[in-house]
Amino acid sequence: MAKAPPEEEHPVKAFGWAARDQSGHLSPFNFSRRETGDEDVRFKVLYCGICHSDLHNIKNDWGFSFYPLVPGHEIVGEVTEVGSKVNKVKVGDKVGVGCMVGACHSCESCKNDLENYCPKMILTYNSIYHDGTFNYGGYSDTMVANERYIVHFPENMPLDASAPLLCAGITVYSPLKYFGLAQPGKHIGVVGLGGLGHVAVKFAKAFGAKVTVISTSPSKKDEALEHLGADSFLVSRDPDQIQAAMNTMDGIIDTVSAVHPILPLLGLLKSHGTLVIVGAPDKPLELPVFPLISGRKMVAGSTMGGMKETQEMIDFAAKHSITADIEVVSMDYVNTAMERLAKNDVRYRFVIDIGNTLAATKP
Amino acid sequence: MAKAPPEEEHPVKAFGWAARDQSGHLSPFNFSRRETGDEDVRFKVLYCGICHSDLHNIKNDWGFSFYPLVPGHEIVGEVTEVGSKVNKVKVGDKVGVGCMVGACHSCESCKNDLENYCPKMILTYNSIYHDGTFNYGGYSDTMVANERYIVHFPENMPLDASAPLLCAGITVYSPLKYFGLAQPGKHIGVVGLGGLGHVAVKFAKAFGAKVTVISTSPSKKDEALEHLGADSFLVSRDPDQIQAAMNTMDGIIDTVSAVHPILPLLGLLKSHGTLVIVGAPDKPLELPVFPLISGRKMVAGSTMGGMKETQEMIDFAAKHSITADIEVVSMDYVNTAMERLAKNDVRYRFVIDIGNTLAATKP
Repeated sequence: MAKAPPEEEHPVKAFGWAARDQSGHLSPFNFSRRETGDEDVRFKVLYCGICHSDLHNIKNDWGFSFYPLVPGHEIVGEVTEVGSKVNKVKVGDKVGVGCMVGACHSCESCKNDLENYCPKMILTYNSIYHDGTFNYGGYSDTMVANERYIVHFPENMPLDASAPLLCAGITVYSPLKYFGLAQPGKHIGVVGLGGLGHVAVKFAKAFGAKVTVISTSPSKKDEALEHLGADSFLVSRDPDQIQAAMNTMDGIIDTVSAVHPILPLLGLLKSHGTLVIVGAPDKPLELPVFPLISGRKMVAGSTMGGMKETQEMIDFAAKHSITADIEVVSMDYVNTAMERLAKNDVRYRFVIDIGNTLAATKP
Repeated sequence: MAKAPPEEEHPVKAFGWAARDQSGHLSPFNFSRRETGDEDVRFKVLYCGICHSDLHNIKNDWGFSFYPLVPGHEIVGEVTEVGSKVNKVKVGDKVGVGCMVGACHSCESCKNDLENYCPKMILTYNSIYHDGTFNYGGYSDTMVANERYIVHFPENMPLDASAPLLCAGITVYSPLKYFGLAQPGKHIGVVGLGGLGHVAVKFAKAFGAKVTVISTSPSKKDEALEHLGADSFLVSRDPDQIQAAMNTMDGIIDTVSAVHPILPLLGLLKSHGTLVIVGAPDKPLELPVFPLISGRKMVAGSTMGGMKETQEMIDFAAKHSITADIEVVSMDYVNTAMERLAKNDVRYRFVIDIGNTLAATKP
C-alpha cells in the first residue's frame, strides 16, 4: 500500500517547519495530524522551545533521523478541543507537551508513572505513533496528544519562559528528587551553565540547597552568582579550586554533553554522594574506580521524568516562580537560532513565538 | 630520635612472617605489639586468611608499601586479655579483626558507624597507628586492637572458614544491603567467581535473591550452579547469552579487579538497577553514558563495611551457616600459596593455620 503524503495522512491540516535532510535547514512544511480521539487533547501551539537535541536531530547526529522532520518537544499552547473521555483539562486551558507522547502503559515503569523509562516510550517527534504514522514536533501550529502526556499550566505562568521546563526543567528536577538532593541543607554542584544547568540552579535553590556552579569558563562566574543566585562558583580546570572543595558536595548534576573528565567531579562529592549525568556524550567517559570505591560514590544517569512528576515540577515551578531565561525568536529566525545554538550563543534557551509568527511564513 | 627496632618498639613480643622488599618473599620476623590498653582486646591468632590485596601489598603493586610488612587482615583467634574498659568480649571468646583497626570516631562517617569511609581510617597493616607506630597484620602469633574493631564470633562458627568473611564477606554483604539488594525476589548478578564472588553468591542466596553468576570462564558453570547454588550462569563474552538476559537484574556485584568492559553489565540491569564495583582495577573503566541515562542506571563503588555492619554480617553468616570455601595451609607454605593465588589457583581462599604451624617456623 502506498503511503499517503504527510498532508493527506490525517484529517486535520497542520503547518510547521521541517528539516528535509541532514543539512538541518528548516523550511515551511504542510502536513496533517489525527482527529481528536476520545482520550486526546488538541491545542493551538503558542510557543515552542529549541532544545539542543533538536539541533542533533535535524542534522542526524545520532544516526536515527527520518525526514521530513518537524522538531520541537517543549510545546505550549491553548486547548481547542478535548476527546469525550478527557478529564484533565478543558477548552481554553493552558497546556504543554514535552519529550514524549506515548508508552506501553502496562510495564513496571509505566505502572510506576515512569513512562520515560518504558522500553516502548514514544518520543514526541522523529518516532512512530501507535497508529503507525510518523510523529511531528512542536514547530507547528497545532498539536494533539493523549491526555496522559498533556501537562496543565497554572494561569499565572508565563507560557514562553515556561516552555523549556517541559524538557530542560524535568530533566534536572527528576534526578534532584530521585537521588535525595531536593532537600534544604544539601550542597549541590551543577556542571555546565546552559539550558539545563541554569534551570538546575534555580530548582536546587528553591529546594533550599547550597548550589555551586562548576564550569570551564571563568567568565560565567558573575552570571552564576549574581544573576542566577548560586552560592559559589568553581572553575573545573583549576586544580587549586577543585582541591579546596574536595568532599563537600552531596550530589552533582552534570549537564555537559561533550566528553569530559569526571575524576575531579567524583573528588568534589562527599562519601555516598552521587554524580548524575543528564547530558549525553556520544563516546564513553573515563571512570576511575578507586575514588568511587573509597567513598561509596555513585555515577548515575537520568533522562526526562514521568508525566506525573512533570506535572508536579510545573506546579512547583509556578509556586516558586521558576522559569527559564529565554530569548524569544520568530519562526523565520529558526535557522539563525540553530547556528547560534551550535556556538552556545544564547542565554539560555531560544523559544519560538509560534502563535504570532508562524502563520506569516505560510507560502 | 632514632627509631626503635620493631622487636623493641613495644613491650609485648610478637612473631610473624614479613615481606622485606618488593620481591614479596615472606620469611620469619620478630617484632612487638603494644600493651593491652584500657579499650584494647588482645588475642592469640589461630587463623588468618590470605586476601588478594595481601599479594598486592607485599609486592608494592599499589606503590605505598613499607617494609618489613606483615600482611593479613582476615584474622581470627581467642581472647587472652582485655582492657579495663572493654565490655564487648571476655577472655576465651572467639574474635576477629578485619581490614581496619582505627578511625577518627568524630566525623560524619564514624558517627554513622561507617568507619570504613572515615578519611582517617587506619588499615590493619602497612599503616600508622594513633601512637605513630607501624601496624603489622595477622600473619603473626598475637594481635591487639581497640574493641571497636573486634568482631565477636559465635561459638558454632568454624573459625578457619569464617576468617575470610572479615574482608571478602563484608565487602559483598555491605553493598547488597546498602543498595537494596538484600531482599527476597531480587535478581542479582555476581561477576567473577573468586574469593569475593563465591561469598557474594552465598549471601545473596541467603537473602532470598535469584542469583546469576557472570564469568568469562564457561568452565565455572557447574561449580556455580551445583556447588554454590546459583540459579543461572552467563558467559560474559557470549553476546547471545547477554542479549537473552538484558534488563533482567536488579543489581550486580562486580568483583573483578582487572580492567573489563561494563557495557554488557549495564545492559543486564533493569531500569534503576545498580552495578556495584567492589574490585579495584588500577586503570579507568570505559563508562558508556547512553545506557546509564536511558534506564536511570547507576555505577557505584563500595569498600568493606563499618564495624557494626561487620558484626551483623558475622551473626547473619552464623545463622545461615555461611562460610568461605577454603584451603587451609601451614605457615611455611605461604610463599607457594602466594604464587598459586597469583594464578587464581585456589578455591576460593587460602587460610593459614597460624595456631598450629607458626611456632614451628621460629628460627
